Amino acid sequence: MRPGIDVECREVGLRDGIQIQKVFFPTVGKIAWLTAEAAAGMPEIEVCSFVPPKLLPQFADAAEVVAAAKTIDGYCIAALSPNLRGAMDAFNAGVHKLNYVTSVSEEHNLANVRRTVDESVEDFKRIVALRDESAGDNKVKLATGLATALGCSISGQVPIADVMKLAERFVEAGADELVVSDTVGYANPQQVKDMFTAVINEFGKQVPVAAHFHDTRGLGLANVYAALESGCRHFDASLAGLGGCPFAPKATGNIVMDDLVFLLEGAGLKTGVDLDKLVEVREIVATNLPEEPLHGMYAKAGAPKGFVPATQAA
Amino acid sequence: MRPGIDVECREVGLRDGIQIQKVFFPTVGKIAWLTAEAAAGMPEIEVCSFVPPKLLPQFADAAEVVAAAKTIDGYCIAALSPNLRGAMDAFNAGVHKLNYVTSVSEEHNLANVRRTVDESVEDFKRIVALRDESAGDNKVKLATGLATALGCSISGQVPIADVMKLAERFVEAGADELVVSDTVGYANPQQVKDMFTAVINEFGKQVPVAAHFHDTRGLGLANVYAALESGCRHFDASLAGLGGCPFAPKATGNIVMDDLVFLLEGAGLKTGVDLDKLVEVREIVATNLPEEPLHGMYAKAGAPKGFVPATQAA
Repeated sequence: MRPGIDVECREVGLRDGIQIQKVFFPTVGKIAWLTAEAAAGMPEIEVCSFVPPKLLPQFADAAEVVAAAKTIDGYCIAALSPNLRGAMDAFNAGVHKLNYVTSVSEEHNLANVRRTVDESVEDFKRIVALRDESAGDNKVKLATGLATALGCSISGQVPIADVMKLAERFVEAGADELVVSDTVGYANPQQVKDMFTAVINEFGKQVPVAAHFHDTRGLGLANVYAALESGCRHFDASLAGLGGCPFAPKATGNIVMDDLVFLLEGAGLKTGVDLDKLVEVREIVATNLPEEPLHGMYAKAGAPKGFVPATQAA
Repeated sequence: MRPGIDVECREVGLRDGIQIQKVFFPTVGKIAWLTAEAAAGMPEIEVCSFVPPKLLPQFADAAEVVAAAKTIDGYCIAALSPNLRGAMDAFNAGVHKLNYVTSVSEEHNLANVRRTVDESVEDFKRIVALRDESAGDNKVKLATGLATALGCSISGQVPIADVMKLAERFVEAGADELVVSDTVGYANPQQVKDMFTAVINEFGKQVPVAAHFHDTRGLGLANVYAALESGCRHFDASLAGLGGCPFAPKATGNIVMDDLVFLLEGAGLKTGVDLDKLVEVREIVATNLPEEPLHGMYAKAGAPKGFVPATQAA
């Protein structure tokens, strides 16, 4: 975590937020977005996904986006890949961090990445080996996303024991971070409290435990608060709640970054993000995706009278 | 609290939800709404406000609505009045509970009900005296709303000490319930935790302490969870988040009742409300206010696969 901040927010809009968009988000727009958000103080930005352009044409410009991202200092450049091939490309592009993803639910993993969970774990070990071969001290960090950890649209409820087991396998394999993910927006704050308490108690001393929530059913920020109370200090979110869900057309996708920062800063926790500047970045999204509804209540209602964000008060 | 439930939800849409609507919600529609929601198991419904029709023509039919509400058994019929005159009318109409409201912020109370806080407390004492004169065992319950308890759009931050002081005056004057209200949607979950812990510790043994949250800046349900964790078991909300805020045209007003029930039931807490039936009631609102956007994520996304509400599991 960057010195001087209490909680780390991580922008995933450039990846999770646009991956289901049918419209191609222009490369120059992506670069403008990440540049403006880095300037607003965002400590980590997931800038793209390294996947075959045939599967997700949205990320055909991944290497170009990472190259542009690297011209800016002071934040962590992350990219997603679900397999070794993508990881090689990401390493070659020069990312700081690779987000690997495996579903806790076997059925969901087969549907999402066409492999069993065992195969995904084995592939991760190969990624760790590849990373470890690289020279130098600045080795790429490897984060492992535990998708469907709080429920699965195919298999329903997911037991905490299954999450703990997969987390253990990844930590043993060399993961630098665990990302407990409510991929389909099923989570309830009570469940989040139980889950994050268990995962942080077991693995929190070895690796950071992050939260990735969707707001599909309106409980996203309640889940954030529950995770926060359970000791979580790393949160994924998407500017303007970009993302959506292909199975729930009117529902938002990721939790709204601007509302997340408002929650944290109002709770007296420094994020290092300038909330006013962050809200201005929404314009870049609006310009590049004019048909897409932008979510976020803070941006619409404005700051409470006399509100001083923790980062500004510092 | 009704036997067999863990948390009490209270529908305020028929009052707070429609009071700023320029369109008159037809009386027959109001009756259809409260009838359907009582049938869905809602334990308490605030059915109207007793205020001069010149000021709020929306409630010109208050007595008629209460008369219809009384033909249905099994739930608490509440109405709001900010003064003795309205309270008399409400008592005469036969409500079970009167919601009285005073702002903790002096400036807001002057703007909202054109009286000082002292004058509001004195008027409440007269209402208690009037209520106590009535014969019989089934005396009307008197709840006191502490408006702007979590921030004021005129004076900004409101100290906990001011809330505690006003709460004490009302409890001493004979209040049967305290409703800590985030009238303008300023609250943060950390602040809610501090506030509800303090109020419940001090007054929770004498009277129920309820929460009234708005979702103006997206933190409504996070605030619910924070209050819940602090021991609060009584929550106001509005079906489909009806309400809005005249000062933030695109922002929602009250927290969404359907999402609130989803949160509570998913947390294993019985509300006594049938969530499917509750969602169906949205149709009545849509029919009567066709121009009004309906909020609520659960209604749009549907239940998680395998979801069993606590009330159904019982």
